[in-house]
Amino acid sequence: MSGEADLLRQLRAMATDPAARGLRDDVAVLPTMGEQLVVTTDTIVEGVHFRADDPPETVGWKLAAVNLSDLAAKGAVPRCCMLNHALAGDPGWDSGFLEGLSRALGRFGMPIVGGDTVALPAGTPRTISLTAIGEVPHAVAIPSRSGARPGDRICVSGPVGDAGAGLALLEAGKTSPAELVRAYRVPVPHLTLGQSLAGTVHAMMDVSDGLLIDVARMAEASNCAIQINHVPLSPCYEALRGSSVQARLEAATAGDDYVLLMALPGERDLPRGLIQVGHCKRGEGVSLRLDGKAVRLPARLGYEHG
Amino acid sequence: MSGEADLLRQLRAMATDPAARGLRDDVAVLPTMGEQLVVTTDTIVEGVHFRADDPPETVGWKLAAVNLSDLAAKGAVPRCCMLNHALAGDPGWDSGFLEGLSRALGRFGMPIVGGDTVALPAGTPRTISLTAIGEVPHAVAIPSRSGARPGDRICVSGPVGDAGAGLALLEAGKTSPAELVRAYRVPVPHLTLGQSLAGTVHAMMDVSDGLLIDVARMAEASNCAIQINHVPLSPCYEALRGSSVQARLEAATAGDDYVLLMALPGERDLPRGLIQVGHCKRGEGVSLRLDGKAVRLPARLGYEHG
Repeated sequence: MSGEADLLRQLRAMATDPAARGLRDDVAVLPTMGEQLVVTTDTIVEGVHFRADDPPETVGWKLAAVNLSDLAAKGAVPRCCMLNHALAGDPGWDSGFLEGLSRALGRFGMPIVGGDTVALPAGTPRTISLTAIGEVPHAVAIPSRSGARPGDRICVSGPVGDAGAGLALLEAGKTSPAELVRAYRVPVPHLTLGQSLAGTVHAMMDVSDGLLIDVARMAEASNCAIQINHVPLSPCYEALRGSSVQARLEAATAGDDYVLLMALPGERDLPRGLIQVGHCKRGEGVSLRLDGKAVRLPARLGYEHG
Repeated sequence: MSGEADLLRQLRAMATDPAARGLRDDVAVLPTMGEQLVVTTDTIVEGVHFRADDPPETVGWKLAAVNLSDLAAKGAVPRCCMLNHALAGDPGWDSGFLEGLSRALGRFGMPIVGGDTVALPAGTPRTISLTAIGEVPHAVAIPSRSGARPGDRICVSGPVGDAGAGLALLEAGKTSPAELVRAYRVPVPHLTLGQSLAGTVHAMMDVSDGLLIDVARMAEASNCAIQINHVPLSPCYEALRGSSVQARLEAATAGDDYVLLMALPGERDLPRGLIQVGHCKRGEGVSLRLDGKAVRLPARLGYEHG
């Protein structure tokens, strides 16, 4: 039980925001002033969303990052978060997890203000949730995934496939190239870029389940078709897997990228940091054209459970 | 997979509040107008917080009720909630769970506006979280658990022990008296009472882990002592277990009551629905006096994990 007392001490040391009420009150209290609040939540399951042998610090970081990535896609500034933590009888793991979580929350300015901790029956895979709250000023439009229009450029904020390649390395018992493993374990949400773009885009979301499946979701929500003609790869990915059509298909269907995906109107220069991957047109569904040739879509476009 | 599609349809039919954005946008968006938001979250684990053979409708109801009870203790009006659901490969269970959840959310006016659904590895006990957001008008004081003062009357909003007795019945393979099983499976949050009392009390919280342990927490947070001299029992509890000191100790250390616990100043008539169980005095800790005699505290005051 002293591990649990340590955990509570560690949580209380993190929860210094007044909204947390010292974690002694079962609730957090947020004053408001007319701003819009953006609320998102993600659950990660051991063996599904993270590996039992992932360092717990990286699991904590990643849980924060995936929620922050959803806030980024709405142009929101992080405000606070609530943690639903599950104890599996390993205080060292919990402490490392909180350390990594704390590092991400500190870096991106999202204090923890509450939560719930439960004990799992022995042998149960951990299930941990984080609920993040961000804010957007009053009357500022918050981009949805449904606003893409024919003629829009479809862009992403970085290469895809690195995290999927990193996971494949770990599954094969390898830990290098470290850059790819790091992309899987320690993604960085594109918060500043999301905030700067939110007023310009017609639609925005993050790529969490795979470029093609998330593009398909944007197309469906927007009642239009999206053609993808470029799959941006990192130098590290290309060095490992090459850039064949197959390598690009694998990158476009791997999950965990956490880059932003947006529909951008107009024909001006692309904002810094963006890569055009396709365009929006009349019709429905996603299509793929690489090296000037139509490419048949793979059977699996990405992950069905983010 | 068609079970999952059904589940999503059922969730979307529940999420008609505009804040939900049709559950198509990874986030919920809440406009604010200067109100204070009260945020609380609870996780329930199969085999820990509910039984594998509890009807799924009651599990859904109870998850809503335990969160609503936290809002009730702060005098908050429910605004919306987010669900972290875990699929364990039984669509019928999930559908029943959502039906019960939906019934509670409808009855107490708390629309679901978002969440996350994950698939668990086969055989994993379900872990499900709900995050509830309530609101309190601007500048209205929100009672904490730390405001009890010497001289305050300590009151609860109903009898304790019924839910614990109901759980004990189920563990013994019995399902009657149904009233006690119902207290365990289908608790009713005291929302209206909490809202009407919030401006009057010095401190308020709900009793979720056992009367004695929750009283001890209020005493500790308030830097005072609380003496309990009455453990209110329901007629049904008394008929089954009697009202001996032992029966009252069992009622005062059983969890899942979800009555409100408060420190009330003054000596006027008690507001309707309240039962005085003790008083606050200088010092620290909780003490127990029944039938005019000091009673030694049991080793276990309640549940450590709510």
